Amino acid sequence: MVPHLITALTGPINELEQRILDSMPAIERWFRLEWMEHTPPFYCSVDIRNAGFKLAPVDTNLFPGGWNNLTRDMLPLAVQAAMAAIEKICPEARNLLVIPENHTRNTFYLANVVQLQRIFHMAGLNVRIGSISPEVKVPTTISLPTGESITLEPVVGTKRRLGLKDFDPCTILLNNDLSAGAPGILEDLHEQYLLPPLHAGWSVRRKSNHFRSYEEVSKRFGKLLGIDPWLIHPLFSHCGEVDFTVGAGMDALAAQVDGLLTKVRRKYKEYGIHEKPFVVVKADNGTYGMGIMTVRDAKELQDLNRRTRNKMGVVKDGQAVHDVIVQEGVLTYERMHDAVAEPVVYMMDRYVVGGFYRIHAERGTDENLNAPGASFVPLAFEHSTHLPQPGVKPGASAPNRFYMYGVIARLAMLAASYELEATDPDAEVYE
Amino acid sequence: MVPHLITALTGPINELEQRILDSMPAIERWFRLEWMEHTPPFYCSVDIRNAGFKLAPVDTNLFPGGWNNLTRDMLPLAVQAAMAAIEKICPEARNLLVIPENHTRNTFYLANVVQLQRIFHMAGLNVRIGSISPEVKVPTTISLPTGESITLEPVVGTKRRLGLKDFDPCTILLNNDLSAGAPGILEDLHEQYLLPPLHAGWSVRRKSNHFRSYEEVSKRFGKLLGIDPWLIHPLFSHCGEVDFTVGAGMDALAAQVDGLLTKVRRKYKEYGIHEKPFVVVKADNGTYGMGIMTVRDAKELQDLNRRTRNKMGVVKDGQAVHDVIVQEGVLTYERMHDAVAEPVVYMMDRYVVGGFYRIHAERGTDENLNAPGASFVPLAFEHSTHLPQPGVKPGASAPNRFYMYGVIARLAMLAASYELEATDPDAEVYE
Repeated sequence: MVPHLITALTGPINELEQRILDSMPAIERWFRLEWMEHTPPFYCSVDIRNAGFKLAPVDTNLFPGGWNNLTRDMLPLAVQAAMAAIEKICPEARNLLVIPENHTRNTFYLANVVQLQRIFHMAGLNVRIGSISPEVKVPTTISLPTGESITLEPVVGTKRRLGLKDFDPCTILLNNDLSAGAPGILEDLHEQYLLPPLHAGWSVRRKSNHFRSYEEVSKRFGKLLGIDPWLIHPLFSHCGEVDFTVGAGMDALAAQVDGLLTKVRRKYKEYGIHEKPFVVVKADNGTYGMGIMTVRDAKELQDLNRRTRNKMGVVKDGQAVHDVIVQEGVLTYERMHDAVAEPVVYMMDRYVVGGFYRIHAERGTDENLNAPGASFVPLAFEHSTHLPQPGVKPGASAPNRFYMYGVIARLAMLAASYELEATDPDAEVYE
Repeated sequence: MVPHLITALTGPINELEQRILDSMPAIERWFRLEWMEHTPPFYCSVDIRNAGFKLAPVDTNLFPGGWNNLTRDMLPLAVQAAMAAIEKICPEARNLLVIPENHTRNTFYLANVVQLQRIFHMAGLNVRIGSISPEVKVPTTISLPTGESITLEPVVGTKRRLGLKDFDPCTILLNNDLSAGAPGILEDLHEQYLLPPLHAGWSVRRKSNHFRSYEEVSKRFGKLLGIDPWLIHPLFSHCGEVDFTVGAGMDALAAQVDGLLTKVRRKYKEYGIHEKPFVVVKADNGTYGMGIMTVRDAKELQDLNRRTRNKMGVVKDGQAVHDVIVQEGVLTYERMHDAVAEPVVYMMDRYVVGGFYRIHAERGTDENLNAPGASFVPLAFEHSTHLPQPGVKPGASAPNRFYMYGVIARLAMLAASYELEATDPDAEVYE
């Protein structure tokens, strides 16, 4: 079940793994205390890159798709976590409405929605799928290549509630990241729970906010463990007033890239790392692996070709990019067979419930793997995330490695929790 | 993984299974609401008998042993449930002390303690084992046939706290059912959490209290599902002032047995069941499968042989029996190969985390299987308890059957919760 990892289980990251294993009770207690103060996102997936000498989350998705890529063995954990989540949010819940993305023709995505429906049904809810796509005007049943089928129904809104014909949910679960902005029908739903909240959508969310929160989390966690937070944190900076389509703001961006490369170079020197530093420029509001570019030298920004400029200028749902985040590139030294791999960890409520490897045969170790051509290999997290094996030599055991991934993923989830608190438009501010 | 069940998946119980599956969201919601009002026992195992025409819990253990009989696949569920339990009871917990039974030579039992230690360690606690056995005077490491080892340490009590040398726990987990009464060292521990509470021990607990609570639970659940609660509830009565060793009170007991057999006969007639009714006489304070006798006719009580009288007169730790419960016997029609089998379901906090079949090749379908010679076959509950398969023909799917077992086991756990509330010596009574 555990995929064969060619380089994952070697290298200096073993020291960090050992430190994390040795500190397990302290780490778990630290998370428990954090979750007393902060509410975890309802669900979440985190992309992790393991460079052998450092390990860091590079993307935190608050509307995770890909639940269908988890193994069947993980389903009971997801169901149990869903039960815990429901119990906290709305114990008297009967009906759950799931609002998916509008990709009604992407059967991979729809298989993910079917899996979410299954998880929440098994947790004891009546679950139906309400589409906000203008194309879905009547209940539409779609057969999937998996042999499953899914029925999308048009949502019906009244002044204060959202539902389907003959279906009044107490909770609405968004699996739609609202890149194009929240439709009016989702606003002012004060009688129903809307999860995640609207400000978790990409029309409000910014990667730079997330990584600022993550920086804070990684510093506190680094203190707990007595480690340099850089070992788990990608350096970054934010750059505004950029317009790739017309080439505006490129000098400022080049300066940011150069500055960050210098910082990374210094860190590499400190740790005796003989790799070439690189940065990743990402749209601050980007998702779906869109609007991402690897830069090894600031000069590359001087003559971007039209294709790259177009790619960087507009992201999902046609949203223009004016702000970018320049992030320290973290190599991934995980491979499966010949393909570059990166682990993706799935969480529900505060629990790690599974994960998979995203692999891409045509991408390099310093490139974004979330791109057409990627495939997915489920991780046997069921024997792993909570199942470290004390006493086993560091790096020698997949379960211990996966426990570490689960810890880093939960740090990113905690950062998302801080981020959502800071960006909550309804937050009460005491000054 | 799923054992081959010869008769389990046929018969009229399929109707009940269908009803339970159809009502899943209502059932889960009902449990959620119950757990808002009542605290589940910290952990619990329930023996279930499936007669094909009815299905009932026959024993609810609040200090479950046998955790080592669960499959490795269930471990992540147990760990996740343990995390949820700790978070609720004592989020700031660091150290957990487990107090086992005094069977320091029973390696099967010790393997169970090792498994409990593993579960709570993986949930993020420092776990050590504190023995209250007078034989354990210094830390004693015992090697088990499994290749594992366990260190038992003598408990050290101060006026208000209990711990080990250099180990101060915030929570003490009893895996000792206190049949002989709670030792003084466990009393007056007001600064530490003691789980389960002392009044869950068999020096206080009575089967008749439990089944009275279960009767109430089954009536309410029967109403929810629109079924006769008898389908999930064994009829019973209580009989005091019995002394098997001198043959006292046998007439009164015979009358009780006769009365209950008549009631069962009437029920069998109502449902057209052509089985011979029987009852099981059990010590009201008995555990470990001790003090249990199958009776098919009240006349059998007139001439009990010396061996039976001795067996019934004294139970675990030499406790004398003066009160018995006369319980409707529930056949078990589950078999594995040629051996009679009964499912045992394990729960942690409010979650079903696993189970196994207890099988006994030398016992009949109307006999107690919890006896020397029993063996254990893990159930693949990881694919099951929370994973019913809607749409599958009733009786045709092990997962659906296991979901039903998990529901019945949780009803018994809820009854234990009512029972502990009613017998709590510190309960505040508002009159």
